[in-house]
Amino acid sequence: MINGPFLLYLGHSTDPVGIKTSRGLADFRRQDCIGEFRYDDCPLTLGLPRMTLAEGAAAGARTLVLGIANSGGTMDPALIDDAAEALDNGMHVVSGLHQRLRDVPRLAGLAAAKGLDLIDVRNPPADLKVGTGRPRAGRRVLTVGTDCSVGKMYTTIALAQGLKARGETADFRATGQTGILIAGSGVPLDAVVADFISGAIEQLAPARDDGGWDVIEGQGSLFHPSFAGVSTGLIHGAQAEALVLCHDPARQGMRGLPERTLPSLAECLALNLRMAGLTSPGVRAAGVCLNTSSLAEDAARELCESTGMELGLPCTDPMRFGVDNVIDNLLCPAS
Amino acid sequence: MINGPFLLYLGHSTDPVGIKTSRGLADFRRQDCIGEFRYDDCPLTLGLPRMTLAEGAAAGARTLVLGIANSGGTMDPALIDDAAEALDNGMHVVSGLHQRLRDVPRLAGLAAAKGLDLIDVRNPPADLKVGTGRPRAGRRVLTVGTDCSVGKMYTTIALAQGLKARGETADFRATGQTGILIAGSGVPLDAVVADFISGAIEQLAPARDDGGWDVIEGQGSLFHPSFAGVSTGLIHGAQAEALVLCHDPARQGMRGLPERTLPSLAECLALNLRMAGLTSPGVRAAGVCLNTSSLAEDAARELCESTGMELGLPCTDPMRFGVDNVIDNLLCPAS
Repeated sequence: MINGPFLLYLGHSTDPVGIKTSRGLADFRRQDCIGEFRYDDCPLTLGLPRMTLAEGAAAGARTLVLGIANSGGTMDPALIDDAAEALDNGMHVVSGLHQRLRDVPRLAGLAAAKGLDLIDVRNPPADLKVGTGRPRAGRRVLTVGTDCSVGKMYTTIALAQGLKARGETADFRATGQTGILIAGSGVPLDAVVADFISGAIEQLAPARDDGGWDVIEGQGSLFHPSFAGVSTGLIHGAQAEALVLCHDPARQGMRGLPERTLPSLAECLALNLRMAGLTSPGVRAAGVCLNTSSLAEDAARELCESTGMELGLPCTDPMRFGVDNVIDNLLCPAS
Repeated sequence: MINGPFLLYLGHSTDPVGIKTSRGLADFRRQDCIGEFRYDDCPLTLGLPRMTLAEGAAAGARTLVLGIANSGGTMDPALIDDAAEALDNGMHVVSGLHQRLRDVPRLAGLAAAKGLDLIDVRNPPADLKVGTGRPRAGRRVLTVGTDCSVGKMYTTIALAQGLKARGETADFRATGQTGILIAGSGVPLDAVVADFISGAIEQLAPARDDGGWDVIEGQGSLFHPSFAGVSTGLIHGAQAEALVLCHDPARQGMRGLPERTLPSLAECLALNLRMAGLTSPGVRAAGVCLNTSSLAEDAARELCESTGMELGLPCTDPMRFGVDNVIDNLLCPAS
């Protein structure tokens, strides 16, 4: 669907969380990434060779990935200039922003003239249906979070990989632009029309009777006033038998709303289970996943242990310690 | 914005709830409604003269209102035929369905050829922003419900009228197609892209310091698995100081999902207050409004009394008994 090799765009980004789409591709499809493009005022790097757009194209990049996210998802004129230069250099352009590349006449004209693709990942299917919440066959697990951008996608991928490592059939079901670029398919849930949120997830993870798992990527947070509607519809559509709670202990305030404090893990888990119970009455918590990248290893291990004790659940950092303990609980619930 | 006189379309509808947009106009803008169009298999009436499309146009109707709602909101070929015939007869056509009139080439062509308007009420503003949940000035009250179509719009209009009758400044803020047609403006919330649900409501009812009220129309229900995401975002965007709970005691199962039971009023109110507290920590319940149209007057009065006692709140049927008791509590909370 989307052809590498990729040149990953960081632009003028200064916020590590804002480049999560570029970072996700660098982490999970690194073999397809040949370089990163960033300006001198961008202090971030993905550890890939730094290239200009012309250098990237010359090195073989077929597609520029505008792998940056901003609240609202609009494109500023400088970003459009860079996308145009990529097209001038013969690269397709992929974007996960709300504002569509194809809706920018200058880019649409250039792409048409050059026979190149403008790919808007945040373009939901046209045939979505309203959700029903009716019981459906299959095993489903959903990640939920105390906030946006706390590691739900990484955790979801790690859980899918962990289940496969145990011999289970498991599919990562992507609901955001980064996940969709990594998986090659999915539903850009935040771009779906409000009436179809839960229905889109029922379609993404339909009834299955092969014994396999749908491992569904969560979005937003029930405690985030910008996006809790998305989280609610996702939870109802997922009809998950188990939730995995994700959290970043270094997060000082809610993403984009620094004045707002995060909920406690216990409060967050309780409300998520409460809401999930509407369509999955037997839903349970399978574990907690922390993003401990801000901590030294000893402190990270201690935090996982104390958090797990406090909540009576397996707790880990998927990137650092793996997800074996959560998978154990998922496959064979502690009584 | 939308010019009467109207011919109201009932078509082949057999479900009283399905014609709620036509009914809303007949109830609240009756002076603008000159007739109703229905087929022989439609057992419903709004009490208006029955007319064919040609007769309606001849009688002076300028606009056909496709005032029917169906889950999913698509137009079937028969409905498109009727819309085309209305255009042939020189009428504008208004629709509140998800599928847009302008996206049907046959209708778009006909309207253009005749110089007539196709008006899709479910067409949200293009400049929506992500919500923030930040505290804003003003007095806001929101209706919430045990289910879809239980009287939230009627209650909202009655509350706005009731506040005005007490000398308050009050604006009805419409969030659904019927309300928008009645009010002449509003936000079709179920058609807004998911990321902007709460932001759309912040824009619909922005900060105000004139001492007046925004009386905001609720949508869906936190307990409806198809639409709870919309309800959640609406609740967070509304940042209401008070909620009014709406319920239809005759409703046997959730709208569109007859196998699913409704929550109890107490459970429903508690979860709505819990969710609303995220952006309005001091939120309270101001009252309960029942649609008692299925009951005799004595039984209706008894039910309002017993429900009010049970919940410790003023309870009424707005259409039958007015909303004075709820307005009393809104303006001067019982301690």
